[in-house]
Amino acid sequence: MVNKEFKLSEIAKLLDLSLEGDQDYKVCSINNLKQADKSDISFYYSKKFKKDLENTNAGAVILSKSDDLNTIKNKLFTDQVHLAYAKCSQLFMPKSVGFSRKDNVPVIHEGAIISPNSNIETNVKIEDGVVIKSGVYIGSGSIIKKNTLIHSNVSIYSNSVIGRDCILHSGAVIGSDGLGFAKNGKKWEKIIHHGNVEIGNSVEIGAGCTIDKASSGKTIINDGVKLDNQIHLAHNCFLGENTIIGANTSIAGSVKVGKSCMIGGLCGIVDNIEIVDEVIIHPMTFVTNNIKNKGVYSGGPVLMEHKDWLKKIAIERKKR
Amino acid sequence: MVNKEFKLSEIAKLLDLSLEGDQDYKVCSINNLKQADKSDISFYYSKKFKKDLENTNAGAVILSKSDDLNTIKNKLFTDQVHLAYAKCSQLFMPKSVGFSRKDNVPVIHEGAIISPNSNIETNVKIEDGVVIKSGVYIGSGSIIKKNTLIHSNVSIYSNSVIGRDCILHSGAVIGSDGLGFAKNGKKWEKIIHHGNVEIGNSVEIGAGCTIDKASSGKTIINDGVKLDNQIHLAHNCFLGENTIIGANTSIAGSVKVGKSCMIGGLCGIVDNIEIVDEVIIHPMTFVTNNIKNKGVYSGGPVLMEHKDWLKKIAIERKKR
Amino acid sequence: MVNKEFKLSEIAKLLDLSLEGDQDYKVCSINNLKQADKSDISFYYSKKFKKDLENTNAGAVILSKSDDLNTIKNKLFTDQVHLAYAKCSQLFMPKSVGFSRKDNVPVIHEGAIISPNSNIETNVKIEDGVVIKSGVYIGSGSIIKKNTLIHSNVSIYSNSVIGRDCILHSGAVIGSDGLGFAKNGKKWEKIIHHGNVEIGNSVEIGAGCTIDKASSGKTIINDGVKLDNQIHLAHNCFLGENTIIGANTSIAGSVKVGKSCMIGGLCGIVDNIEIVDEVIIHPMTFVTNNIKNKGVYSGGPVLMEHKDWLKKIAIERKKR
Repeated sequence: MVNKEFKLSEIAKLLDLSLEGDQDYKVCSINNLKQADKSDISFYYSKKFKKDLENTNAGAVILSKSDDLNTIKNKLFTDQVHLAYAKCSQLFMPKSVGFSRKDNVPVIHEGAIISPNSNIETNVKIEDGVVIKSGVYIGSGSIIKKNTLIHSNVSIYSNSVIGRDCILHSGAVIGSDGLGFAKNGKKWEKIIHHGNVEIGNSVEIGAGCTIDKASSGKTIINDGVKLDNQIHLAHNCFLGENTIIGANTSIAGSVKVGKSCMIGGLCGIVDNIEIVDEVIIHPMTFVTNNIKNKGVYSGGPVLMEHKDWLKKIAIERKKR
Repeated sequence: MVNKEFKLSEIAKLLDLSLEGDQDYKVCSINNLKQADKSDISFYYSKKFKKDLENTNAGAVILSKSDDLNTIKNKLFTDQVHLAYAKCSQLFMPKSVGFSRKDNVPVIHEGAIISPNSNIETNVKIEDGVVIKSGVYIGSGSIIKKNTLIHSNVSIYSNSVIGRDCILHSGAVIGSDGLGFAKNGKKWEKIIHHGNVEIGNSVEIGAGCTIDKASSGKTIINDGVKLDNQIHLAHNCFLGENTIIGANTSIAGSVKVGKSCMIGGLCGIVDNIEIVDEVIIHPMTFVTNNIKNKGVYSGGPVLMEHKDWLKKIAIERKKR
Repeated sequence: MVNKEFKLSEIAKLLDLSLEGDQDYKVCSINNLKQADKSDISFYYSKKFKKDLENTNAGAVILSKSDDLNTIKNKLFTDQVHLAYAKCSQLFMPKSVGFSRKDNVPVIHEGAIISPNSNIETNVKIEDGVVIKSGVYIGSGSIIKKNTLIHSNVSIYSNSVIGRDCILHSGAVIGSDGLGFAKNGKKWEKIIHHGNVEIGNSVEIGAGCTIDKASSGKTIINDGVKLDNQIHLAHNCFLGENTIIGANTSIAGSVKVGKSCMIGGLCGIVDNIEIVDEVIIHPMTFVTNNIKNKGVYSGGPVLMEHKDWLKKIAIERKKR
């Protein structure tokens, strides 16, 4: 699959942006400032990525006039960067990051077992010893490495990479789109997700987990991670080696969790949080700040008789 | 599918109710007081529906003797209205609300793409440009409108309506029964769900979401709504246009959310709540009251070191 | 399926344990102290199972030298009992507890309806009146009793027992592995799950629920239990008759819930908790202690305006 190419002048016209720089310069994909190279167009919409803007290798950047930097050669200006990013994401096809051959048929090792009613798309590679149960869907360009076991009714979107010796339990979804939308008046404009999911070796993914692909770049689950059931991991997250997480925990976008952490069930972690290595978090904790020190954290609500709870909330409300 | 018809005298006998009114009057379905017409039987079991009782067009009403109203002509009395409602719901077949033809085969537009291992039941209509991935189930009488994309292993129960330009991610379930049961001694009597789910245009439903059908009437998701993964929406809910909701949020029965709301992940909203337009709710908030004013709301528990949490709960418990 | 047999001397050698007792004694499966018989090897790693150790019928026990008991005849000593247990669990095949015949083909009653794209494995028994929708997977040795309805895309792992008159909604997963791992240096060693799930009669399991099999023994859901959508029930849990649970509630391992309880949605219950009969728990409650008395319990966080929440957390943090 060859990506479409656009001249910056074409993008400026299609998205109604004002262009400064080489109007014949061509880009063929969209990426974040950090990972972009000169064939990519990128975007800058939050001060927290200032450093990335200063150091980017992107061929062109969409940004606000007030954030202009001399070091950027090709610029497309708008007051609504997030919306322009969403529209721009719709111009390009996702990059194929997985296995690819000219004849497009999946390559399934003779030592792999594929059960009935599964559907393996084009350009998938399945290695020796892999077992795939029934009702599994594997999207194009994905790779399933040696000895991995995929239980029934798992859905794997295109371009996913699943390591060796993994177990994916039934109903798990790998590579669905993240909740990426930009406001366009009252409506929401979809940010097309160009990234993928990469899962290391010896990872276990519980039943009903949902792991979103990156909007650009990769959602990464490192070697030895163990996820209980019904965990949600949003786009662009990173889980360090041997981290283990309890059921129903929900992790928002671009969260980075260190190595050998233990996170309890039903925790919520807001977006863009960083958690260092070897942190222990008890169940039902709401993580709203970076956790910079190894240690044990909590926060769950206190069990009480209902009549005491009614008193408590009456007091809390009177206080205000 | 023609519904069974019952005389009120038959219902009174089958359900052991005392009848006041026309014993030969015939009803052919069950509905709530507000939406019922003269071919429906309805039920009244909570003071909060008093206004609906006074204004109902139902052909007959099941209610308690103490709630008797002169304006109702045909009445079936019992002390256990909720249980009688459950039993009555079991008499009738769900109304077919979707597309229906005499020959019963699904009608699939030649411009739609249906992947292998999907199962499209009778009387389904699939419009132009629809893409259905593998392992999808679509129950009888459902309609999938133009250009909608349904990812692998989605389950859609009968009589669902899915709008144009929607995306349903893998593992989502549309139209499952709500948690509707009436106490019958120690046991639970099932309330058969006669309603359906109707989803507007340009709606995105995240991976693993579950959207229950209405017990009677409709569960409604309006145009432009965007749901993250693993959201639960119970029977008879209503989501206003362009509302967006974060992952793992759980919304109980008959909740009405306004337009352009933004609700964070892992929130719980109890049943029968109303939330006005343009409300913002942070993640992990527990919504136990109507939200009558536009604004920003919170309530999530506070992150702390575990030793501080142990002190906090010791203090909270001593207080009582 | 005949289980592999091991002499204790072989196990001692394979797992690097020091053996005291009859080195030619043979065991063919692994089980907890309480349920083990003389053909089982068992393990002791927590004081809370002291009584079980004293009364066990296990043929041999893995334990720490410091926990040695004279009443145990055959002992395998190690400082890392949990890890040795994990490794030992990997030696044995799970016991077949379900229906089994010499010819191995599933036995499907002529009065059952099996939809297309379902996959029924060997040694499954499906009784009269059962309806199985499309995309369902049923693992070997499972039994589905009379008149049970299984909706599309349900996954049932091997050796599960599903009672009469049950309804399993789409996307539910029965019998996935629990989150069972023992630390082995930095890595996690998998505890192979030898148990199963047994579901009684007239049980309803909501869409997207995940019910883990027992690590050894049974995860049990008794007659008349009703589960809303997306509930997680971990390994070795027990739910008493006619208990009803709201959506998105997450129950950790070995929790025992009594009869006729009503538990709200989004609750978290930590492992090894016991809850007596007829307890009512409001939504979003965090249950960290046994509940020994019938009553009504709560604990959910309080809804407030976001500006008040910011004040509240500032105060809570200053206190410490």
